[in-house]
Amino acid sequence: MPPQIIIGIMGPGNQVPNSELQLAHKLGKAIAQQGWVLLTGGRPAGIMEAASAGAASVGGIVLGILPDEQGNQVASGVTLPIVTGMGSARNTINILSSHGIIACGLGLGTVSEISLALKAQKSVVLMPNNPLAKDFFNALAPGQFHMTNDVNSCIEHLKSGLSQKFSTPT
Amino acid sequence: MPPQIIIGIMGPGNQVPNSELQLAHKLGKAIAQQGWVLLTGGRPAGIMEAASAGAASVGGIVLGILPDEQGNQVASGVTLPIVTGMGSARNTINILSSHGIIACGLGLGTVSEISLALKAQKSVVLMPNNPLAKDFFNALAPGQFHMTNDVNSCIEHLKSGLSQKFSTPT
Amino acid sequence: MPPQIIIGIMGPGNQVPNSELQLAHKLGKAIAQQGWVLLTGGRPAGIMEAASAGAASVGGIVLGILPDEQGNQVASGVTLPIVTGMGSARNTINILSSHGIIACGLGLGTVSEISLALKAQKSVVLMPNNPLAKDFFNALAPGQFHMTNDVNSCIEHLKSGLSQKFSTPT
Amino acid sequence: MPPQIIIGIMGPGNQVPNSELQLAHKLGKAIAQQGWVLLTGGRPAGIMEAASAGAASVGGIVLGILPDEQGNQVASGVTLPIVTGMGSARNTINILSSHGIIACGLGLGTVSEISLALKAQKSVVLMPNNPLAKDFFNALAPGQFHMTNDVNSCIEHLKSGLSQKFSTPT
Repeated sequence: MPPQIIIGIMGPGNQVPNSELQLAHKLGKAIAQQGWVLLTGGRPAGIMEAASAGAASVGGIVLGILPDEQGNQVASGVTLPIVTGMGSARNTINILSSHGIIACGLGLGTVSEISLALKAQKSVVLMPNNPLAKDFFNALAPGQFHMTNDVNSCIEHLKSGLSQKFSTPT
Repeated sequence: MPPQIIIGIMGPGNQVPNSELQLAHKLGKAIAQQGWVLLTGGRPAGIMEAASAGAASVGGIVLGILPDEQGNQVASGVTLPIVTGMGSARNTINILSSHGIIACGLGLGTVSEISLALKAQKSVVLMPNNPLAKDFFNALAPGQFHMTNDVNSCIEHLKSGLSQKFSTPT
Repeated sequence: MPPQIIIGIMGPGNQVPNSELQLAHKLGKAIAQQGWVLLTGGRPAGIMEAASAGAASVGGIVLGILPDEQGNQVASGVTLPIVTGMGSARNTINILSSHGIIACGLGLGTVSEISLALKAQKSVVLMPNNPLAKDFFNALAPGQFHMTNDVNSCIEHLKSGLSQKFSTPT
Repeated sequence: MPPQIIIGIMGPGNQVPNSELQLAHKLGKAIAQQGWVLLTGGRPAGIMEAASAGAASVGGIVLGILPDEQGNQVASGVTLPIVTGMGSARNTINILSSHGIIACGLGLGTVSEISLALKAQKSVVLMPNNPLAKDFFNALAPGQFHMTNDVNSCIEHLKSGLSQKFSTPT
């Protein structure tokens, strides 16, 4: 199997509205349909569970970067659990390992991941629209992210970031 | 030496306005004058350097939690460099090891640390006043932090958090 | 894709005799032929490179758990680079994420991984035969590992460990 | 307070013979009497507890690098708990942060730390005498460590390593 493109979906584990769970499922599915590998925080909860299930529904490969050291609490669609035993420090691995990152919903852990992703100058999409988050991150990293409600717009933005990164000289 | 109270000052390494460097120096000094140990990210830059120098100016103990693995790039006031070799993953250690946390200024790394601190339900002070940051974090963690321009107000807020944490039954 | 079995091959990056490079290549190939996913430390050197190339030669999936934070120094057969930015601390992830572990050759990093694997009570195979290492680890973890020169014997030992772990009640 | 010299004592938490607990207590005390800071794995068990108590008995500063993320299980002599939440991955921090390392007794975790210390070319003392460990590590890192039963010999060896490291050209 050749080297794969890895797209991370970050989002809260708790208190996630149904609309965002459905969005995460669609995003996971869309990523797998592109032939990309999905990466999540791997826990069987919230956005991690929904996105993994979406990718699994079409046979995708799903990396789950787990915070605990037992590795027995895993989202149901995960094919490759990576057991870190490092708690929230594994957020850094989520970001560094993803070629592009989607934040779906906004929890405190997600904010830490968005910040690290922007700092590492990754391709970042924030979903769904959130004017306050837009203003806040634009003040810190102007023009460095895309915000949308639309799955297609998200995928197109990631594609254009990947084509810049993986383009070959002619 | 008995167990010490550790207060972390988090803040950007680059492009820090002079007013915030001066604020960080005052905060580091005030922490040491309380008899508290200062913890910073340890690099010889920006808020880390200024806060460490402030604490060192009155003989304080300064923990510097360093991201690289050589450990030879250290803020000048650091007495105890902790060498992690873990890059941004060391931000988690900064937060977990501090009994109270001051964010002085706002960079992307700082935002990741504020988020982790609020998630870990630490006592958090944001300085200086920043209406957009106030609105953003209040939406995620209502009433969980104090924002001020004033060093005394910051120290008093931390004291009250510590007294709740360290109070003994009578 | 259903959850996968992950087998780690640990071994030195430098000063590896040719015989051990050839052994690592055979082991990587045998793991992929079992339908297992190979995990290595991911660097383009020594045992990591040889084992990854072996698995890649028969189309296997290869996880490379990288120590640096750029993620651009990768063994040629790696399909899924996991970028940790955590230096030697990533050795822990190598061990926790593998259902079974083969140490091929013996460097200082490898010894740290063997120790962590025995401590985590993983299924461990040491190759090739090394009487001093056998005595040393037997004193610390008697009967907890298998030592052999033979690829088939190694695979059979791992299989029996996996069948204990993944067996289902009837 | 000027920058401090940090000496790490590594050793098992469980099943430690009394003679080694007493040795760890003496070593912790001797380190503090040199004016050095003691670093341990910080847990209230075995060598970590004994060494910390030894240093505390003469008023020393003790860094405890804790594996869990609550930070409420701490050896009684620790003055500065560093809370990592990283499990065994914190062993790397123990080694990188220490200017010299003493392994007192031999458990699997200790072996991982000795290996990392030798790999990082730190000054290393193994105690007490253990012919099998001597042969094993000499095969991997010939002449890179000192083995002894004697506290004074241990301290002298560390001193000579420190004087090489901290000597200034004249």
